[in-house]
Amino acid sequence: MAATPAWPPRSAPRLHVEEALGPGARIPVEGNAAHYLLSVMRVKEGDAVLLFNGRDGEWAARATAIRKRDLVLECAEQTRPLETAPDFWLCAAPIKKGRIDLVAEKACELGVARFRPVLTARAVVDKLNLDRLRAHMVEAAEQCGRTALPALDGMEKLPALLAHWPEGRHLFFADETGGAPIREAFAAHPGPAALLIGPEGGFTVQEREAIRAHRAAVAISLGPRILRAETAAIAATACWMALNGDWRAHQAPGD
Amino acid sequence: MAATPAWPPRSAPRLHVEEALGPGARIPVEGNAAHYLLSVMRVKEGDAVLLFNGRDGEWAARATAIRKRDLVLECAEQTRPLETAPDFWLCAAPIKKGRIDLVAEKACELGVARFRPVLTARAVVDKLNLDRLRAHMVEAAEQCGRTALPALDGMEKLPALLAHWPEGRHLFFADETGGAPIREAFAAHPGPAALLIGPEGGFTVQEREAIRAHRAAVAISLGPRILRAETAAIAATACWMALNGDWRAHQAPGD
Repeated sequence: MAATPAWPPRSAPRLHVEEALGPGARIPVEGNAAHYLLSVMRVKEGDAVLLFNGRDGEWAARATAIRKRDLVLECAEQTRPLETAPDFWLCAAPIKKGRIDLVAEKACELGVARFRPVLTARAVVDKLNLDRLRAHMVEAAEQCGRTALPALDGMEKLPALLAHWPEGRHLFFADETGGAPIREAFAAHPGPAALLIGPEGGFTVQEREAIRAHRAAVAISLGPRILRAETAAIAATACWMALNGDWRAHQAPGD
Repeated sequence: MAATPAWPPRSAPRLHVEEALGPGARIPVEGNAAHYLLSVMRVKEGDAVLLFNGRDGEWAARATAIRKRDLVLECAEQTRPLETAPDFWLCAAPIKKGRIDLVAEKACELGVARFRPVLTARAVVDKLNLDRLRAHMVEAAEQCGRTALPALDGMEKLPALLAHWPEGRHLFFADETGGAPIREAFAAHPGPAALLIGPEGGFTVQEREAIRAHRAAVAISLGPRILRAETAAIAATACWMALNGDWRAHQAPGD
């Protein structure tokens, strides 16, 4: 909690950094981040900037040592503890650039703990620029108030993913050939979970059989319309957050 | 139902048209649609194309009179009746171009019956290109298998929307200052519904008071993270479809 209610203001910019955060820690900022703070957000000496690094929670820092292209942010106080993200992974096949970027951005906003790209037989893309995906997640985390990014794994092939699947984690997969309505499926399978979404062309018959035969798999239906891969990923993630994740008990504070 | 199980094939292209569809109806196709069918999908004489117009259900047609830049599609048989979309409206404030296009596309895919753009005090955009939004919906409907587009209204101001709100339709609104978890809110308010989503800057205090005071309004919370306007629209729509819409009873056919 902030010591003075008016500080930091709600409009303070938020920034993801790599450095350790703690009382008096001084974080040098340059490059794009400095341009954003100085030229876009017009940060002045003493203004508040909120910082997070995925380890130390959120800290309010004061801008100091402002120069044309760089500044220093000096940590003043912790404003929020490190988040506990809902225990939900998104395992998605790569799809074309703009659409996988959208999935990464929305996964972060919606509260996904871990994003595992999965290579399947019908994927039309077999490489992913993880730096670009991470940049989309950073921007989303800065905007949505998260204090950590989703973990982001390198791409893995579907058989390996299934072979090394951890005990005790449900694997919901959107099966276009049939599955339980997600309301029932999520209610019947609480606890740690993951969502597996195929590429635009769907899973092959062999892949679907391998997934269905897996002990952790729960086939779900996303309704009578054919959703694009990125829509399925975003829609089912939102439903899980609402039904089994941390949207359940949340009551935002009154004015 | 198709008379011959193998026809039309599942891979047949789908096309939204304006003309009436019925036995023997001949639909001339030119321009972008002809280019798509002939150059992208490589449609040949006698190939199947699925047609819908929002009134007559879905029809399988045969390509004929193929020339360099145009062709004729001759209706053979109805393959699906006209859909009954879930009775759900999306009332969303305009946001910048790419993001409102995304909302229109996803609203169509997810099954929204009507899209009503609503002008609010903090909207940074005060004009909408309805033709462009409709084009995004047409493409989404072609891809997701809908037999009708969502109705698309012209932009209306929030006070007018509230003043003429129909009896018997819940107005769920995402209130950043607090609301019920959507699982409880949707369960407690079945039946015709609409979702009201503000612009990036949210509603003003006055707007929020006017909405909260409305007899149809139900404040909902979309969890502890701050969702972008388009994410809130897509996420809450998906949850409504899963909980109160037509994802509930849907069981896709087995292989």
